[in-house]
Amino acid sequence: MEFIRVNMSAKEISRQPVPEQYRALGGRALSSLLVAAEVVPGCHPLGEDNKLVFAPGMLAGTRAPSSGRLSVGGKSPLTGSIKESNAGGISGQKLAGLGIRALIIEGMPKEEEGWFILKLSPSGAELLPAGDLAGLGTYEVTDKLRKAHGEKVAVISIGPAGEMKMAGAGVATNDADGNSSRYAGRGGLGAVMGSKRLKAIVVDSPGSFDAAVAHPEKFQEAAKRFSEQVLAHPVTGQGLAALGTNVLMNIINEAGALPTRNFTRGQFAGANNIGGEKLAEVAVARGGKATHACMPGCIMRCSNEYPLPDGKVCSPIEYESAWALGAHCEIGDLDVVGKLNYICNDVGLDTIEAGGTLGVLMEAGVIPFGDGAKAVESLEEVGKGTPLGRIIGQGAGFAGKAFGVTRVAVAKNQHMPAYDPRGAKGIGVTYATSPMGADHTAGYAIGANILKSGGDVNPLSKEGQVDLSRNLQIVTAALDSTGMCLFVAFPLGDLPDALPALLDMINACYDVQWTPNEFLALGRQVLKTEREFNIRAGLGKIHDRLPEFMEKEKLAPHKQIFDIPGEELDQVFNFMD
Amino acid sequence: MEFIRVNMSAKEISRQPVPEQYRALGGRALSSLLVAAEVVPGCHPLGEDNKLVFAPGMLAGTRAPSSGRLSVGGKSPLTGSIKESNAGGISGQKLAGLGIRALIIEGMPKEEEGWFILKLSPSGAELLPAGDLAGLGTYEVTDKLRKAHGEKVAVISIGPAGEMKMAGAGVATNDADGNSSRYAGRGGLGAVMGSKRLKAIVVDSPGSFDAAVAHPEKFQEAAKRFSEQVLAHPVTGQGLAALGTNVLMNIINEAGALPTRNFTRGQFAGANNIGGEKLAEVAVARGGKATHACMPGCIMRCSNEYPLPDGKVCSPIEYESAWALGAHCEIGDLDVVGKLNYICNDVGLDTIEAGGTLGVLMEAGVIPFGDGAKAVESLEEVGKGTPLGRIIGQGAGFAGKAFGVTRVAVAKNQHMPAYDPRGAKGIGVTYATSPMGADHTAGYAIGANILKSGGDVNPLSKEGQVDLSRNLQIVTAALDSTGMCLFVAFPLGDLPDALPALLDMINACYDVQWTPNEFLALGRQVLKTEREFNIRAGLGKIHDRLPEFMEKEKLAPHKQIFDIPGEELDQVFNFMD
Repeated sequence: MEFIRVNMSAKEISRQPVPEQYRALGGRALSSLLVAAEVVPGCHPLGEDNKLVFAPGMLAGTRAPSSGRLSVGGKSPLTGSIKESNAGGISGQKLAGLGIRALIIEGMPKEEEGWFILKLSPSGAELLPAGDLAGLGTYEVTDKLRKAHGEKVAVISIGPAGEMKMAGAGVATNDADGNSSRYAGRGGLGAVMGSKRLKAIVVDSPGSFDAAVAHPEKFQEAAKRFSEQVLAHPVTGQGLAALGTNVLMNIINEAGALPTRNFTRGQFAGANNIGGEKLAEVAVARGGKATHACMPGCIMRCSNEYPLPDGKVCSPIEYESAWALGAHCEIGDLDVVGKLNYICNDVGLDTIEAGGTLGVLMEAGVIPFGDGAKAVESLEEVGKGTPLGRIIGQGAGFAGKAFGVTRVAVAKNQHMPAYDPRGAKGIGVTYATSPMGADHTAGYAIGANILKSGGDVNPLSKEGQVDLSRNLQIVTAALDSTGMCLFVAFPLGDLPDALPALLDMINACYDVQWTPNEFLALGRQVLKTEREFNIRAGLGKIHDRLPEFMEKEKLAPHKQIFDIPGEELDQVFNFMD
Repeated sequence: MEFIRVNMSAKEISRQPVPEQYRALGGRALSSLLVAAEVVPGCHPLGEDNKLVFAPGMLAGTRAPSSGRLSVGGKSPLTGSIKESNAGGISGQKLAGLGIRALIIEGMPKEEEGWFILKLSPSGAELLPAGDLAGLGTYEVTDKLRKAHGEKVAVISIGPAGEMKMAGAGVATNDADGNSSRYAGRGGLGAVMGSKRLKAIVVDSPGSFDAAVAHPEKFQEAAKRFSEQVLAHPVTGQGLAALGTNVLMNIINEAGALPTRNFTRGQFAGANNIGGEKLAEVAVARGGKATHACMPGCIMRCSNEYPLPDGKVCSPIEYESAWALGAHCEIGDLDVVGKLNYICNDVGLDTIEAGGTLGVLMEAGVIPFGDGAKAVESLEEVGKGTPLGRIIGQGAGFAGKAFGVTRVAVAKNQHMPAYDPRGAKGIGVTYATSPMGADHTAGYAIGANILKSGGDVNPLSKEGQVDLSRNLQIVTAALDSTGMCLFVAFPLGDLPDALPALLDMINACYDVQWTPNEFLALGRQVLKTEREFNIRAGLGKIHDRLPEFMEKEKLAPHKQIFDIPGEELDQVFNFMD
């Protein structure tokens, strides 16, 4: 197992065995620890001193179910904080298949040197000129690279948004079908990749599921137990498996926490028209798929393939995307939502940030609320790099400044996902305090607040939310390090043998003896490292707050403001004192 | 003497006698102390919790020469810091003439309530509907209000940039001729005024120079001595008086510290074509004025009236404006510079920020370097509120993000004025550490670095710059509180009776016994208050730094980087420890 470093200034590639202090680490733990150790916190996120780290999870490349997620890390041009964003697809498994624990992109070429492709294969690593791939969308880039390098390669790429260094740009990778729309979307890491003039990474690995495991039999037994736990939980075994993440649309709407019309209400009359039930019905009727695996070995299969009226296929339409491009903009038409989602995937934008931004432009009167055609037309300007396109690509905080809008639902300048903090206060604590900026995946309090999984905390009460969010952020930081899909948090929170089975997999894989204590200690270490980086980068307690309007404007139907005081939010990090 | 508070939410106006702790304070001391005491540091700068404070200086309304500057303060939407920006013109004297020490604008109307005018006169204060003034440029607004309320009124106004809440928007006021182009330009306080939906303030005061003075005879004697000192100094008595601030263009170019082509070089081949000598020649030939007083009672008369080819008159073209809109953009044509300057004045933009931004757009390739026609066309989009206009109005840091440009010469997101920190390192220390963001007026090290006034510190050496900047920042904070034009710093730094005469004026005015110690203590108190506000607002040491490129790219002709380490910059505030 090794690290690969690619110096884009010198165009030099070097390899090193995994240093002892990083042994048994992967995913978020590895990317965050490397960024914190090697990146100057005050550096310009788009300058030569930032680094971009790709790290498969601890269990990547093994037969652990749903364990192939790829972590991408660096300093974020969107939030100014450390950033880890992870994605499904096959690239995590492929990197692990080549024995690559971390791929570290450093330095920056001169503009006149053009764009590059990095090719990783059993015969080594090489930088190639990107040629005519520069300027293309991720779908075409992925198609062309799969034609050139083989259908089974993984392609990690950026679209024009990343090339133009837009803070809303994500890093795309593909599923086993070659669909490039699995995204490490959040925080503008696509712009960091763009600043390094790296258009794509091709990972050509013949192997799959054959990463080294210290005790194969023990591992297999534990993996089987873990799969059983995942399949036994109603969310991961049934809800997600039947309707994907968009099963949440009607649930969150019912709960009154569905941010609607740029966070002015908690319910959307058109929710059912863009929800999971409708999606499944239309997708199947059009020959698409209501369920689909984003990576081989996934037993939840929460993804989908939604055929659009123009013949293209948007895969997947996730709940948070359908919300951002739908309810947030009062667009109640799944075909429009799918079209907007497809454009984001192709141009290389985070759907949450892009949808959030369209909502802000609607608040500003630049686009009328609910006007899908105008939204599509505006979003298409991103790829063209027009001034409006540049504003959209930079995200909601930026668009709010441009148009003088103060009702902008961001934390650390990153747009909030599909849950209003006034209707589910636990998630508000996570948005405010996560070192990543507003991010539901950083501590998914919706489980205990609304789904009654992993506890039961009244979503409208101030009580218990800080403890809930802290515990979830710690577990999540550990889980993001394993390469596991976050959804396994449901069985982990509710079923007694899930965590033991997960630990048994890790122990069998690395010949270690982790108890829950070691697992949680890893989560705390990751969070602490991230927060310390942020403090050195100039982000303190004052940045762990929600926007002013959420403390002043009551959200219907529950007529709630976000009323958890700053001093209580700061208690999320009491384990750092 | 009193404070007037205008609550824009309730449309209520209240008056209070000056509280004891603010007695004898004015200008920057008063505005910064009030903002620090009354504004929540974490508030949204364009939200209802920010306040906008107008404060004439301690000596405003007296016969002290050049003492009528008006301080404007609030939390800046550009820098996120506390902000004080001051302007010449007649409004400081007029406010003092009404006995107003501070005018505090609070709260915020609803958008549907429209725009307001605040009228201040001996008969009281009232809010009036702005009617058809909304949307107009500052020239027309000022003309109409002078027609409606009398030719002698002072008008404080914003242009469309402020109405659109652009972070580059300034607050305009007029000279005795009714010309509205005296600006508290920096830091976006025009946007704060816009957020409060206050289009203009009319100050109708019959008096002038009759503010209360405790000991009139002593005062008159001190004022006479002070005038003699100002007139005796070669800069204030001769250089500025003959050619205005733009006398600096050729001097700074000669010194190799004139930022050219977006800070890629320190000398501009076309400098002479946009400098003070040329300006005086053309202005006089066209029937304009090479010198002009921005306020009654000014004995330096460094302003000018430059007739443009289209018949309009740009008054003044300051050095920093001519640099930003000229050398920085490689525009070597004074008529184009004047036209750009006029547009800024009319639409209500800070010329330094606007010129800085145009240079960044040139770096991005949006406008070709040196293309005056395209620059004019682009700048005209600001008033139209197009997406490009919105980007320009938000300033250089914003435009850099929008177009992926990292060579952006900002500190705390405010664009640097006309002196490259690599060619005059003392000013770099001021840019980095001033609580205001990059601001030459906050500690004008160019004096000792280049003009050899107030000391002699090698501009290219690291040595002595931190001490120089600290001392200047302290004196300046005190001087900005008096209402005096900053140029009196030249005699204060070089002539022995200047400071005693200034202190004698203050002592005679307020019946106090200030020595230089009290004066410097005031400066330290102001700076400390400002910096503490910033820290509470989330701005720490990491924000007291220059952009990365200045530590990496050598500036021709001296081949210097900015090499003063962060820990040394932090020593500017050693008096706070």
